[in-house]
Amino acid sequence: MAAKEAIIITDKDEMRKWTRSMRAQGNTIGFVPTMGYLHQGHLSLVQDAHNQADLIVVSIYVNPGQFSPNEDLSTYPSDFQGDIEKLNSVPGGVDVVFNPKNLYDYGNSQIGNGSERNLEESGGMVVSCVEDKGMGHEAWVRVEKLEKGLCGNSRPVFFRGVATVVTKLFNIVEPDVVVFGKKDYQQWRIIQRMVRDLDFGIKVIGSEIVREHDGLAMSSRNVKLSPADRQRASSISRALSRAQVEAEKGQVNCRELINTAILTISEAGGTIDYAEIVDQESLEPVETIKRPVVFCVAVCFGKVRLIDNVEIDL
Amino acid sequence: MAAKEAIIITDKDEMRKWTRSMRAQGNTIGFVPTMGYLHQGHLSLVQDAHNQADLIVVSIYVNPGQFSPNEDLSTYPSDFQGDIEKLNSVPGGVDVVFNPKNLYDYGNSQIGNGSERNLEESGGMVVSCVEDKGMGHEAWVRVEKLEKGLCGNSRPVFFRGVATVVTKLFNIVEPDVVVFGKKDYQQWRIIQRMVRDLDFGIKVIGSEIVREHDGLAMSSRNVKLSPADRQRASSISRALSRAQVEAEKGQVNCRELINTAILTISEAGGTIDYAEIVDQESLEPVETIKRPVVFCVAVCFGKVRLIDNVEIDL
Repeated sequence: MAAKEAIIITDKDEMRKWTRSMRAQGNTIGFVPTMGYLHQGHLSLVQDAHNQADLIVVSIYVNPGQFSPNEDLSTYPSDFQGDIEKLNSVPGGVDVVFNPKNLYDYGNSQIGNGSERNLEESGGMVVSCVEDKGMGHEAWVRVEKLEKGLCGNSRPVFFRGVATVVTKLFNIVEPDVVVFGKKDYQQWRIIQRMVRDLDFGIKVIGSEIVREHDGLAMSSRNVKLSPADRQRASSISRALSRAQVEAEKGQVNCRELINTAILTISEAGGTIDYAEIVDQESLEPVETIKRPVVFCVAVCFGKVRLIDNVEIDL
Repeated sequence: MAAKEAIIITDKDEMRKWTRSMRAQGNTIGFVPTMGYLHQGHLSLVQDAHNQADLIVVSIYVNPGQFSPNEDLSTYPSDFQGDIEKLNSVPGGVDVVFNPKNLYDYGNSQIGNGSERNLEESGGMVVSCVEDKGMGHEAWVRVEKLEKGLCGNSRPVFFRGVATVVTKLFNIVEPDVVVFGKKDYQQWRIIQRMVRDLDFGIKVIGSEIVREHDGLAMSSRNVKLSPADRQRASSISRALSRAQVEAEKGQVNCRELINTAILTISEAGGTIDYAEIVDQESLEPVETIKRPVVFCVAVCFGKVRLIDNVEIDL
């Protein structure tokens, strides 16, 4: 049975016009921002969006603004045609796929009078985390505390880039509800805080992690794992589950829980970037579990960096 | 002849609801953000907004987020009743005065679960430029280059606070067009850049400076001048006009133009904070006038700091 086919929109103004016209007809708009190379985790975000809104927009855009020069922007996997097929096969489908070419190209801007760096001068590539190459892009959204810990330690410009591109997408798509995956727990909390602090008229939904059969959290980066590392990587979710069970049994000492988890993952061959138990909202490290916490880890298997987490609500 | 009376809205959600309902009826919304204590300069922004949009919203809100602890937040003048009367007497009036109590009070937030600092703990006052007293507010919009020069030198958190509160107001009021005064030239350019870089679906209008009979640019702070300083302060616009005339006659050496202006203002008793001729868009200092520039000054008379500028388009 063929589901409906998504309209593909690449132009910012056309995207905003679509939303406004649909809203004027009484529809609510749900939005799922992605960087493409979709997997079941993304599709579950779309399903959650269907429970929240009448019409669904999914964006597919690999945001250069959140990658450091030494990160994997150029090798980030993509499969646009496959993505569209997957989205069309979700129950209820999606209404629009927003697929802009370059969100940092302000060629038509009222401000661009020639004094701006333009796309050609910068070699056609936006590396906006390095502001001098950003074609004059210089407005950034910072969520100053939440952006600092966890992934912020090893990826200092990452959340600045995420918060900024999400703001841009919110202003273009103008949704009523947005769905983010809890797999990127810090990102979800940052967006939630940003929406509150900047008074976006948008509801933010956190969607549960979708896992492979052996527990590995779904991620576009999983395909980069060698077959052996793919097997070993299941140690991450195993370690987190065990911590959750131990905490429920009464082990509230975070140091103990973390050490056990690190051991499990290291023995499987993973290199720990961080393993922290933090408050679910402030993301500040916790020593003893007394209120809702989340156990977050980032682990490298080979060159592939994976993140995962588990909420512990005692 | 009585003009229409503005509706006064204090609640964020009610404000957004008003805009959406008016837009659904086919109206465009013009918006003029102010800190109150209105003068003819503000009213001229409202008049410009009438030329751009069907319905007009004026916000009156003294934003604590843009004041440093040592600045004049607590003594910033206010006259809400007088402001309303002035707005009601503008030809065409205004439709809504948005007068929120505290834009940084997130008491009803989905995030506030008690781990947040609340309004009472912070003594009822938000000093959000010091983030630890901001009741958990931590999302800030930075326009990283434009915020640095001119007023940014002596007021390092000022434009962070301005860009952030304007983002909040944009997200609450959801206007089609906004009008800013060119008297706050750097602010106008920062908002324009922010709107472009963050893809707000909003048109930004710059409104010409309105002056007193002797040339002094209108400002809410003018009332704080002693009678003698009030007279002397006209030296500012005199110096800027003279520079403009000299440039038009062929003097394109900025150092010369600046020195003459500084002399005029200093002789009148003003203390120069800065006097710079800068590119109209990048706001970067210019040595020789070859393209559109703006001559910007900040001057203290007594304890009152005044800013003014003149565009020079050769």
